[in-house]
Amino acid sequence: MKAESITKRIRTIRSELDNKTIDCLIVTKPANVTYATGFLGEDSWVIIIKSRAYLVTDSRFTEQAQKECPSCAIIDRTEPMADAVAKIIRKSKSVKTIAVENSISVAEFKRLKKALGARIKTADGIIEKIRSVKDDSEISAIKTAGLIAAKALAQILPIIKPGITESELAGTLDLQISKLGSTNSFDTIVAFGPNASVAHHQPTLRKLRKNDTVLIDFGAKYKGYCSDITRCFIIGKPTNLYRKVYDAVENAQAAAIKAVKAGITIQKLDSIARDVIRESGLPVYGHGTGHGLGIEIHESPFLKPDTKGVLKAGHVVTIEPGVYMPGKLGVRIEDDILVTEKGYKILTGKCPHSPLMA
Amino acid sequence: MKAESITKRIRTIRSELDNKTIDCLIVTKPANVTYATGFLGEDSWVIIIKSRAYLVTDSRFTEQAQKECPSCAIIDRTEPMADAVAKIIRKSKSVKTIAVENSISVAEFKRLKKALGARIKTADGIIEKIRSVKDDSEISAIKTAGLIAAKALAQILPIIKPGITESELAGTLDLQISKLGSTNSFDTIVAFGPNASVAHHQPTLRKLRKNDTVLIDFGAKYKGYCSDITRCFIIGKPTNLYRKVYDAVENAQAAAIKAVKAGITIQKLDSIARDVIRESGLPVYGHGTGHGLGIEIHESPFLKPDTKGVLKAGHVVTIEPGVYMPGKLGVRIEDDILVTEKGYKILTGKCPHSPLMA
Repeated sequence: MKAESITKRIRTIRSELDNKTIDCLIVTKPANVTYATGFLGEDSWVIIIKSRAYLVTDSRFTEQAQKECPSCAIIDRTEPMADAVAKIIRKSKSVKTIAVENSISVAEFKRLKKALGARIKTADGIIEKIRSVKDDSEISAIKTAGLIAAKALAQILPIIKPGITESELAGTLDLQISKLGSTNSFDTIVAFGPNASVAHHQPTLRKLRKNDTVLIDFGAKYKGYCSDITRCFIIGKPTNLYRKVYDAVENAQAAAIKAVKAGITIQKLDSIARDVIRESGLPVYGHGTGHGLGIEIHESPFLKPDTKGVLKAGHVVTIEPGVYMPGKLGVRIEDDILVTEKGYKILTGKCPHSPLMA
Repeated sequence: MKAESITKRIRTIRSELDNKTIDCLIVTKPANVTYATGFLGEDSWVIIIKSRAYLVTDSRFTEQAQKECPSCAIIDRTEPMADAVAKIIRKSKSVKTIAVENSISVAEFKRLKKALGARIKTADGIIEKIRSVKDDSEISAIKTAGLIAAKALAQILPIIKPGITESELAGTLDLQISKLGSTNSFDTIVAFGPNASVAHHQPTLRKLRKNDTVLIDFGAKYKGYCSDITRCFIIGKPTNLYRKVYDAVENAQAAAIKAVKAGITIQKLDSIARDVIRESGLPVYGHGTGHGLGIEIHESPFLKPDTKGVLKAGHVVTIEPGVYMPGKLGVRIEDDILVTEKGYKILTGKCPHSPLMA
């Protein structure tokens, strides 16, 4: 990540902290650590005091931190994390109010309080809110992650033939992602036939049949940023029901994508997709219509019926309506969409999309 | 998991809770939820009151819970988790002292306190301590996880040839694990040449050369239980240094494994491996000599110089000394060992182990 991007992010975080009269924020959530520094390693915290960010890591990660974080002070700790963090904060005389992210565990919070010997507040979602609006470098990374995923899927289409198992298909897709120098953004879901009615199905040794259906939900990572795509394919002759459901889901997704624009309320957008399914006389899905994605595979904004607020330019969200009929079928179609002032850009448009296969 | 195994576990947890005068324990850590119920899904908590376990889940997981948890009450919640948990606890008049695991986040802890409208304590490592000693069904699952990993590695040995990239080798190994109906117990590490000096190296597009070395650290899962294996291979002609280091690591591992027996102090065991490396005039590794494994890939006991206590019969631990020389090489050899009253059993002995390849 470029030093200027990070400097700008720290400035934005700083300004939000000033609004909340927080002198010092301790960042413990891995995705927020990555956002505030560019660091992609593990087990590290960030301290933000004034406009300075300190990455507190250990010898396993100092080399990586030096490469990835050109614009922050890297602290190679040897003592326990809470003690190392307290030491740095104590050096800064100007610090009066300290906050730590409320995703920290109670055990770690207690350790930190003890080490600091000072009052400490908890902060809720400060960086999550800021990073829900992506900058150009982030949008570009998510787009590349989508292109890698699309390429990997295109490469394995020829092996989607009767006889292959869900596990082998998932594993082969993951291998293509590896060969492209990437990793999965989450565990690949491959579900044949009625298995697709379980939204979070895990691949099994169930074999693909002569007339069958395939649901693949997967993604790749690029520079720490995720893509998230779902595609459905038909092998042989589809049932009339499957065809009807596929069309309804495709229409629901298209209607919602078309409505994406800065300013639309999340509730409105969510209902547009649901209404198409409902009007087709099909069961309405229980999950959200989509979710933000970036460093995390699921992040703010969550496109659900009970989410208040509007889409903003720079949000990147999935749109993924579905229909699930236990024992019969499951269909979901999912793309990653950038919200713009004037409308939207589909970041995963190059991914193979046809429901019918030879 | 068999109902009897789970009933026995709940009884053991109950007895420990009685010792600590806790009437009700709220279990929030996923590995502990699995241990107390057999449940392998996500986003679910367990409440233990008297000898009864309630699994609080939602509609995404009720079908799975019914299959996996024959011996606990399954609650299909529709309200937020904290509210659902509070409702169940309030029904039980006998509950006076409530505790929640201290790995819970501060944000969730606050929600829970509010929903309960009652005092609530935090509990530290109760289930972790109990599940560090494995029962027969667990040992058998870990052994099978090791056999799957061994089989997958044996299958990909022929493709370890000059030209293949770290990413492709890792992806192909993962694919074999998928084909065997299993999943990875953690992200596979494949490191060629000097890349192996970074203990947590992530696979890259670096190609294997004519005279080169390979480190593979990987594992498979079976019924929720992990295996964890590291092997090193030489391609072509090894350097004298590599040969010397490999022998020292092999000797260090063998000496430590030979010393494994219920009753040995963890510090003693850790030092046996380190001493062999030190006496060979090589740099001593910074990580632990090993760690417990089971539902989690890293769990109690941690075999480190500063861990107090002794090994117990039923502990399953890795033994994995290494030597790391940045810019030159990295060697680590790792097996999974069951501690018995009389000594040990190697659970991963069938995994290919020769350092030299044609």
